Amino acid sequence: MNSATTPAMTAGTPSHDHEPVSALAYREAMAQLASAVHLVTTDGTGGRAGLTATSVCSVSDGPPTLLVCLNRNSSAYPVFLRNGVLCINTLGATQDRLAADFAGRVKQAERFDGRDWTTLRTGAPVLPGALVAFDCRIVDRHAVGTHDVLICAVEALGGIGGAEGLLYAGRRYRVLRREAPTAE
Amino acid sequence: MNSATTPAMTAGTPSHDHEPVSALAYREAMAQLASAVHLVTTDGTGGRAGLTATSVCSVSDGPPTLLVCLNRNSSAYPVFLRNGVLCINTLGATQDRLAADFAGRVKQAERFDGRDWTTLRTGAPVLPGALVAFDCRIVDRHAVGTHDVLICAVEALGGIGGAEGLLYAGRRYRVLRREAPTAE
Repeated sequence: MNSATTPAMTAGTPSHDHEPVSALAYREAMAQLASAVHLVTTDGTGGRAGLTATSVCSVSDGPPTLLVCLNRNSSAYPVFLRNGVLCINTLGATQDRLAADFAGRVKQAERFDGRDWTTLRTGAPVLPGALVAFDCRIVDRHAVGTHDVLICAVEALGGIGGAEGLLYAGRRYRVLRREAPTAE
Repeated sequence: MNSATTPAMTAGTPSHDHEPVSALAYREAMAQLASAVHLVTTDGTGGRAGLTATSVCSVSDGPPTLLVCLNRNSSAYPVFLRNGVLCINTLGATQDRLAADFAGRVKQAERFDGRDWTTLRTGAPVLPGALVAFDCRIVDRHAVGTHDVLICAVEALGGIGGAEGLLYAGRRYRVLRREAPTAE
């Protein structure tokens, strides 16, 4: 079974009709999608922690609710659960180094060093200069494979707004220019 | 209470410390985030239906699983539930008209007209020329406010791959040029 080395990307014709989709082929397909980049942070009785995430999406505006998918095997994950709160700090165009730091380049204990983090309502760290900050309480969670889907009620909003956002696409950080044309 | 007209976007200082976040302020904050654009399609005993969605994200690669958030009040929603399958067709840079069509510009009954849709494993319609197509079975769902979070097992992959993706940011369609620089 060699489907793991040949992602099925041919329109309309599955290359292996009765084989499951391999993790590698799935990751390759997902890498085609651009997404915003966020630092997901928490603080409270469980301590402070933060990591970089792209699996964040809006669920409902009534009441304002978003979700974030976190790997249950992440060493930071129990801290999020214990605190029950988190902040989704959406990164701006110039914050790609911070994204790499929180993705693992810097040790967990040192990730918050050198910046004046603030808070909104829940106490979760808010990044100064974040494009948007969604300050949330975790209200539900659902285990799916390796990850938990955390359902989060948005309790306060922050951020600078109106700037370029950082994107992750094709396995690298990118910038969408705000006034770029919509077609070639 | 006038918070509905003044989105709280000031870093670190919630403008209304004990008021809930308004739907308008939340939507304004979410509009700052860029996201990929997808046609979510279904076909089966419940009939054929499709709509445009941006609330799609990867959950796990073990096993390959994604989620999509759909409004339970959408007229197409019962069709998705009855069929139990869907395809996430991620749009390429030149497919913004199709995104607008499936977002409501064209009536549901006519949205599939004029194109040779294919299928992969589940029978859900696969868009010719989609950047990526994730052919899925709905394996779970969770009600959150106005929406259902559909947990979807990826059963097959399609799409052309390697092209520019369509983005939605600041309430309009945009294009991320594949070789754009990562900083200003």
